Amino acid sequence: MTEETWDVVIVGAGLSGLSAAQTLRKRNGKLRILILEGKDRVGGRTVTQELPAARGIDRWDMGGQWVGSTQTYVMDLIQEFGLEVYTQYTTGKKVHHVGGPHAKVRTSSTSIPALSTLVLLDLSQLVWKIDRLSSTVSVEDPMKTPNAQELDSMTLHSYIEKHAWTEEMKEEIGVCSRVVFGMEPNQMSFLYFLMYAAAAGGVLCLLESTPGSAQEFRVKTLDCKAALCPQGGTQQLSERLAQQIGWESVRLGKAVTAIWQDAEQANVMTATHSYLCRAVIVTCPPHLAAKIHYQPALPIQREHLTQNMPVGHLMKFVITYQMAFWREKGFSGEIVARPSAECPLSVTFDGTSPSGSAALVGFISGVQAYDWSSRELSERRDAVILSLVKYLGEEAASYIHYEEKDWALEEYSGGCPVNVMAPGLLTYYHPSLCTPCGRIHWAGTETATQWCGYMDGAIQSGQRAALEVLARLCPFTLTQEEQEAVQAAQNQNHESGPCQHIPSTSHLRRALILTTLIMATAVLLAQPQLCRDWIGQARQVVLRRFALW
Amino acid sequence: MTEETWDVVIVGAGLSGLSAAQTLRKRNGKLRILILEGKDRVGGRTVTQELPAARGIDRWDMGGQWVGSTQTYVMDLIQEFGLEVYTQYTTGKKVHHVGGPHAKVRTSSTSIPALSTLVLLDLSQLVWKIDRLSSTVSVEDPMKTPNAQELDSMTLHSYIEKHAWTEEMKEEIGVCSRVVFGMEPNQMSFLYFLMYAAAAGGVLCLLESTPGSAQEFRVKTLDCKAALCPQGGTQQLSERLAQQIGWESVRLGKAVTAIWQDAEQANVMTATHSYLCRAVIVTCPPHLAAKIHYQPALPIQREHLTQNMPVGHLMKFVITYQMAFWREKGFSGEIVARPSAECPLSVTFDGTSPSGSAALVGFISGVQAYDWSSRELSERRDAVILSLVKYLGEEAASYIHYEEKDWALEEYSGGCPVNVMAPGLLTYYHPSLCTPCGRIHWAGTETATQWCGYMDGAIQSGQRAALEVLARLCPFTLTQEEQEAVQAAQNQNHESGPCQHIPSTSHLRRALILTTLIMATAVLLAQPQLCRDWIGQARQVVLRRFALW
Repeated sequence: MTEETWDVVIVGAGLSGLSAAQTLRKRNGKLRILILEGKDRVGGRTVTQELPAARGIDRWDMGGQWVGSTQTYVMDLIQEFGLEVYTQYTTGKKVHHVGGPHAKVRTSSTSIPALSTLVLLDLSQLVWKIDRLSSTVSVEDPMKTPNAQELDSMTLHSYIEKHAWTEEMKEEIGVCSRVVFGMEPNQMSFLYFLMYAAAAGGVLCLLESTPGSAQEFRVKTLDCKAALCPQGGTQQLSERLAQQIGWESVRLGKAVTAIWQDAEQANVMTATHSYLCRAVIVTCPPHLAAKIHYQPALPIQREHLTQNMPVGHLMKFVITYQMAFWREKGFSGEIVARPSAECPLSVTFDGTSPSGSAALVGFISGVQAYDWSSRELSERRDAVILSLVKYLGEEAASYIHYEEKDWALEEYSGGCPVNVMAPGLLTYYHPSLCTPCGRIHWAGTETATQWCGYMDGAIQSGQRAALEVLARLCPFTLTQEEQEAVQAAQNQNHESGPCQHIPSTSHLRRALILTTLIMATAVLLAQPQLCRDWIGQARQVVLRRFALW
Repeated sequence: MTEETWDVVIVGAGLSGLSAAQTLRKRNGKLRILILEGKDRVGGRTVTQELPAARGIDRWDMGGQWVGSTQTYVMDLIQEFGLEVYTQYTTGKKVHHVGGPHAKVRTSSTSIPALSTLVLLDLSQLVWKIDRLSSTVSVEDPMKTPNAQELDSMTLHSYIEKHAWTEEMKEEIGVCSRVVFGMEPNQMSFLYFLMYAAAAGGVLCLLESTPGSAQEFRVKTLDCKAALCPQGGTQQLSERLAQQIGWESVRLGKAVTAIWQDAEQANVMTATHSYLCRAVIVTCPPHLAAKIHYQPALPIQREHLTQNMPVGHLMKFVITYQMAFWREKGFSGEIVARPSAECPLSVTFDGTSPSGSAALVGFISGVQAYDWSSRELSERRDAVILSLVKYLGEEAASYIHYEEKDWALEEYSGGCPVNVMAPGLLTYYHPSLCTPCGRIHWAGTETATQWCGYMDGAIQSGQRAALEVLARLCPFTLTQEEQEAVQAAQNQNHESGPCQHIPSTSHLRRALILTTLIMATAVLLAQPQLCRDWIGQARQVVLRRFALW
């Protein structure tokens, strides 16, 4: 077995690992840094692919694609590399098809979803309740959240069952959970969900394309002929980081199988090589970090944690067209659909490239991915196209190319977009996710406290782990403040998270509540019959509660 | 890398792997069978240890120790080896200390726990509800359970929060969950809990020491000088199986790291060896099976499942005494205690050996194990002894030896007694737990349909996997009926589980309900003040519900 010696070995060449390397390199150019990656490419859960399009060949992100103005880490990186972002296209009618098997297809041209008055009211009260709870969560240490034990003891599903008034709202939450986590609401801790929302600045930030939200911008795909842009899309962030660090420090196709450590050093092993070093940063998702063999064994708290952090199941598709026919028909390209035997997709967006190649992007996720992943590609494609025809018109059938990526099948990913926590873990084991184990430091977007689960969180976590390693190997490269911050984080003494610095989305919430209240009052005054119906529905909800109880 | 060729390679030399080998050997003596075990011993989660005792040295089970008359697989094995069982000692007062920080220590001499009338009524209604739900569960295919989706969407905690009347009952369920699963009620799916209870014949079967229950018998520790008994206790079942199969077929200290397979054969790899074979049976617990590297990758459903099946955290202790002083004082040795800063133990039992060496055995589990595992042994021991002194008297301080085993720290176990399922899994992924993947067949007590999680389930699962392998390699060794059964199981066509053949425990339930009703009526008639108190308590429960709603 070939043996090499380094200062720091980083496991994983996604945004997290490469950001860690960048920070280490910037602070101390003398550190010998090696990045080992199982895949044959950098970028982790971001990958940009060339597809046949209206203007010949264009590029689309088959993984993470959106960034937002409150995602300060990724926006800084974009600025550092002189890249540009552009706003997600949202003009026009949004299609909404949720609300039981007999639901009508609704459209809306505003940012308020096309829901009935009662469901809008239900949405408002639910978002208000969840945001209120979310604002009490300590992102660094969810155990400090008031009533943490109780919030962590139920699934998101259980909370919604208890607090949503309408069946349609419950279905809506299913769609949201599928799209954001690739996971059903019954698979995750409600406290974890609150923590995740808090790290993003509020629950609506996870769902919207408005300023400050998760789907605000996309990264421009520059012309591939430019010397500095080997691929374009979001993967170029990782490509450029690798270039900056030096490609000679990145070894692809090198899956780490074991990490041994003693008082002297750590030994990071692949099937054929052994890399001795003074510190290791493991950046791969928890379920993959759990597959590495550690000697001595990791603390059982960490082992138990990574046994219980399932990764989402997400398939992304991109469909290219001669022209963005939906725009001409007044649609934004945004579709939100309920799971059904015929329709695999959960959500679509306009995916037209900055150079004008028309496309729709969408996701098959959670239970829908489970149901559809084992079928033939052609069957899935035909079902997706059929759904698009139903929602956007016949033109959807005349596509140029259909491309999809099932992240669960990608080796050294095994799922996307993020690992969540099952109930009963956050209140016991959360600190184990970041606490260094000897010479091993942990990064990856799942360990982030700002936009956990996103590219932004990946970068934040990489930089945080790099500071930890610098504090260990060469503390003189850190300011007094940074050293204290590292120490404080490791002592879990933080009382509040950086999420508090993210602009509040309460104006969105307030706007939504106000609008629905005004709409509801107007409609009810104008339509006495609707008023009676609504009271009838409300009465049924109340009666059902009593019957259940 | 040394290469060998075999017919069947079995991963794991616990009861499951050894039972699989025994069945294969019995049906076809020509099959070349190899068992690979990571540990340096056979027995998996059963291990018997020599400890200093009143009569010199005696043996105690530091892992699985109880069997019951309805556990037909393990009872058959005990009979086959000419071993004997003896009844768990339960005569005398049972100590019960549950019910909030100011709870009184209560004792009871009957099989009915020492609870207040209201809590007894609460227990009755809860056991009745859970058993009624449990009887509707299809153990082979929980997806077929009526309302499966909803039952799997909540934690056991959420169900109890909704259906228990009293805070004390909620605490009781915590203790039960800790003792049975080494897990908190908020960490597992309620449907999984129901399935587990159904596989055991009812929820009380999991908790009691009465006929048909989990804690009914212990296996006699025979004299070690006898030629056929190298160790005694329950581990001797595995020792004898290994002897019967032939020790030359069992390789200890051989941890499997990878399993590759193609159309021709499978290749089971350790760090130094490569074993080619026609079929593999993997018997290790799901979280360890998940650490093996498979090529081609396993179906994502299975990967997602094993990412979400946490193992319990259980520490077992055995304390030997000069004499069973508790018996003389009228105690049974059974203590059930609430978690507190002072008391690490959840439960204790009389553990006196058949040869008369006095001992108490007990468990530190779930949240208590989490809190206490990182402290020094001496601190834990002193706290356990102090608790025993509190509950049984000063004599508890004069012990001969204190021995404990933290199963989370044992390599190639990482926890005990069983892996459970987090919410949202059973209804999607359960079939993946048993469905063969190419040449790989799955066993282990977690895959059992009778006494899942127990030694009995381990044996059942090993025999089932062996039949699957025989159906593949030499179907002529199976009866037509067996072939059809293997086929049917693989098609998941079973409509009902063997749990239905286990004698019902409804008589226990009925007795409990009747007794509590009679007691309650008598007490309430005799004590009008108590009646008023009880109505007051009930009123508070109702008011709290309304407030929550």
